[in-house]
Amino acid sequence: MSTDKTRRSQIDADCGNLARGAAILGTGGGGDPYIGRLLAEAAIRKHGPVPLVAVDDLDPDAVVIPVAMMGAPTVMVEKLASQGQFAQAVNSLARYLGVTPTHIACIEAGGVNSTIPIVAAAELGLPLIDGDGMGRAFPEIQMVLPSIYGVRATPMSICDEKGNSGIFDTVDNAWAERLARPATVEMGCSTIISTYAMSGAQVRESYVPGTLSLCDQLGAEVMSARAAHRDPVAAVAELLHGRLLAGGKVTDVERRTTSGFARGRATIEGVGPDAGRSVVLQFQNEHLLVELDGTAETSTPDLIMVLDAETAEPVTTESLRYGMRVRVVTAPSDPRWHSDEALALVGPRYFGYELDPVRFDGTRGVAA
Amino acid sequence: MSTDKTRRSQIDADCGNLARGAAILGTGGGGDPYIGRLLAEAAIRKHGPVPLVAVDDLDPDAVVIPVAMMGAPTVMVEKLASQGQFAQAVNSLARYLGVTPTHIACIEAGGVNSTIPIVAAAELGLPLIDGDGMGRAFPEIQMVLPSIYGVRATPMSICDEKGNSGIFDTVDNAWAERLARPATVEMGCSTIISTYAMSGAQVRESYVPGTLSLCDQLGAEVMSARAAHRDPVAAVAELLHGRLLAGGKVTDVERRTTSGFARGRATIEGVGPDAGRSVVLQFQNEHLLVELDGTAETSTPDLIMVLDAETAEPVTTESLRYGMRVRVVTAPSDPRWHSDEALALVGPRYFGYELDPVRFDGTRGVAA
Repeated sequence: MSTDKTRRSQIDADCGNLARGAAILGTGGGGDPYIGRLLAEAAIRKHGPVPLVAVDDLDPDAVVIPVAMMGAPTVMVEKLASQGQFAQAVNSLARYLGVTPTHIACIEAGGVNSTIPIVAAAELGLPLIDGDGMGRAFPEIQMVLPSIYGVRATPMSICDEKGNSGIFDTVDNAWAERLARPATVEMGCSTIISTYAMSGAQVRESYVPGTLSLCDQLGAEVMSARAAHRDPVAAVAELLHGRLLAGGKVTDVERRTTSGFARGRATIEGVGPDAGRSVVLQFQNEHLLVELDGTAETSTPDLIMVLDAETAEPVTTESLRYGMRVRVVTAPSDPRWHSDEALALVGPRYFGYELDPVRFDGTRGVAA
Repeated sequence: MSTDKTRRSQIDADCGNLARGAAILGTGGGGDPYIGRLLAEAAIRKHGPVPLVAVDDLDPDAVVIPVAMMGAPTVMVEKLASQGQFAQAVNSLARYLGVTPTHIACIEAGGVNSTIPIVAAAELGLPLIDGDGMGRAFPEIQMVLPSIYGVRATPMSICDEKGNSGIFDTVDNAWAERLARPATVEMGCSTIISTYAMSGAQVRESYVPGTLSLCDQLGAEVMSARAAHRDPVAAVAELLHGRLLAGGKVTDVERRTTSGFARGRATIEGVGPDAGRSVVLQFQNEHLLVELDGTAETSTPDLIMVLDAETAEPVTTESLRYGMRVRVVTAPSDPRWHSDEALALVGPRYFGYELDPVRFDGTRGVAA
């Protein structure tokens, strides 16, 4: 156990706080955190705690292989990965590259993609990096900060639970997405991938540090606010330097699983202090745009989180349903996501929304 | 040059007869034989003649790697492969398998898939096997005789002309098709693949021997019949031990490029001795069913060939158009295609036609 409250040195058998915090940073995506928690805890019980290495402590020559689940969260919650599938994805890529991995990493912070790398690290007996490539979750492979630093998504490996596997080696990171997505659809809408193999030096340059510790801290903060009868939703907003946007009752959810994604929109009617107000959320696996009374209040790349109004339990896009009482919290993303190059990857226009990015505090342009 | 008229020992710079014969055996599939011919002749001019090895002469320990084009022939004729792409597919698979290939092979006899392996063999300086895995052409990866002998389609490599590539390693040969087809669609509906890597012993057990020599002989026979003012269409039927079904004018063609295939049907109204008769062809890249006056006359796996009525030039499914004068020839396939196991792979019901197989001579069941 770490002695520093906000920075952990290993991951132990109770992953409840980490999974809860990961689902909050997952901004609606990443699938059911309960499943991710069970997978990680089972692996740690079997193989022992997983050492956590800070990004800044990483040897520049380290061989880092990230692992993640790809597909629609609506499917992930019903079609579980098979045991050994995570280690298989890592080994398949390592073999193709002719390298021996020294560390496992999360490519995104969000739901199961924060906990799956714990399983792979435990199975392989390797340490895990305390960081990720986004500081949040995004739906497509190329949408990671390492993309901007010239790290290649390929060669990447892809595995399903039936025993099928593949390797893609592409001319750019958008092509990795173009080829892996239809393969994922064909393999049953949910696969395990290993991608963005990189050196320790590349991780130190491009990763968002401390994400797993932050997830754990977020989850713990929610629990302690509840225990102390403080408002856990406000506690999340405060810890992430964000704001409480509005709260109310979910009155409509349109959701389709198309092209391997959970896409849709949800409407929330304000209650209590927000009575008479209307919130609309648009999502593609993750929440990408929130409007209040018809005005865009926050858009990708900043974080839009939907939490249970009382408990601050994160509500994933595939579990949103009529009648839920929720509150919407927005928070800043890693500032590197606001460069022109990054906005071309993850800005609202990429997803088909005809507007300039709106920051978590409702401002446009460079102000924050 | 070979001294035996029907068995060649190498492929020289004039591939006209071979390409024409390959398009006849291609039963409508395999793309424009003229393009295949140009590719092969350019490679031989640059690298020299390609030695041809008879299936029976193959060392059982030979390392044989087949190479083929995958996709819709309608696209292949417009989107040419890039130079070196054929050798790249072979090398990519060989590297993944950790082997050094000793021979190149055709996986199917048909159009460009008889001539592309010539290009790969010339580029790599390797001999080519005089045979193929079908004795005709079929539209899907698993539809080869080696499938029936337990040879695995994967690991397979796939490359496009932009520089993207992939490897698939699947639990069975139908899964190779399921994963490579959407990748081919995404890569632009036409790719180069290397698949069914096998030993010389496996080739000797499962291949149809002599196919390239037969293609060459078929093309030569068409030319000599034309020169001698004999009927070249009848000459094709005789050489393949088949029959002349009927001839007429193409009056209707429905063709769509869907899911990476050219699918459709064509109607021919009888002229001359066949006046008043009606022929309907159904195809998925290859001709799979021909009906005469509403009765099924021949179905897959036997060969259905559409030839120009005067010259016996083969007419591919993507070049069929209104007004063409054509004659339909049917011929027996390799007898191994009529086993129950083989019919499950390539019989009419697999393609959605609700009938039992009809032999080239119109008979049903085991008679031929």
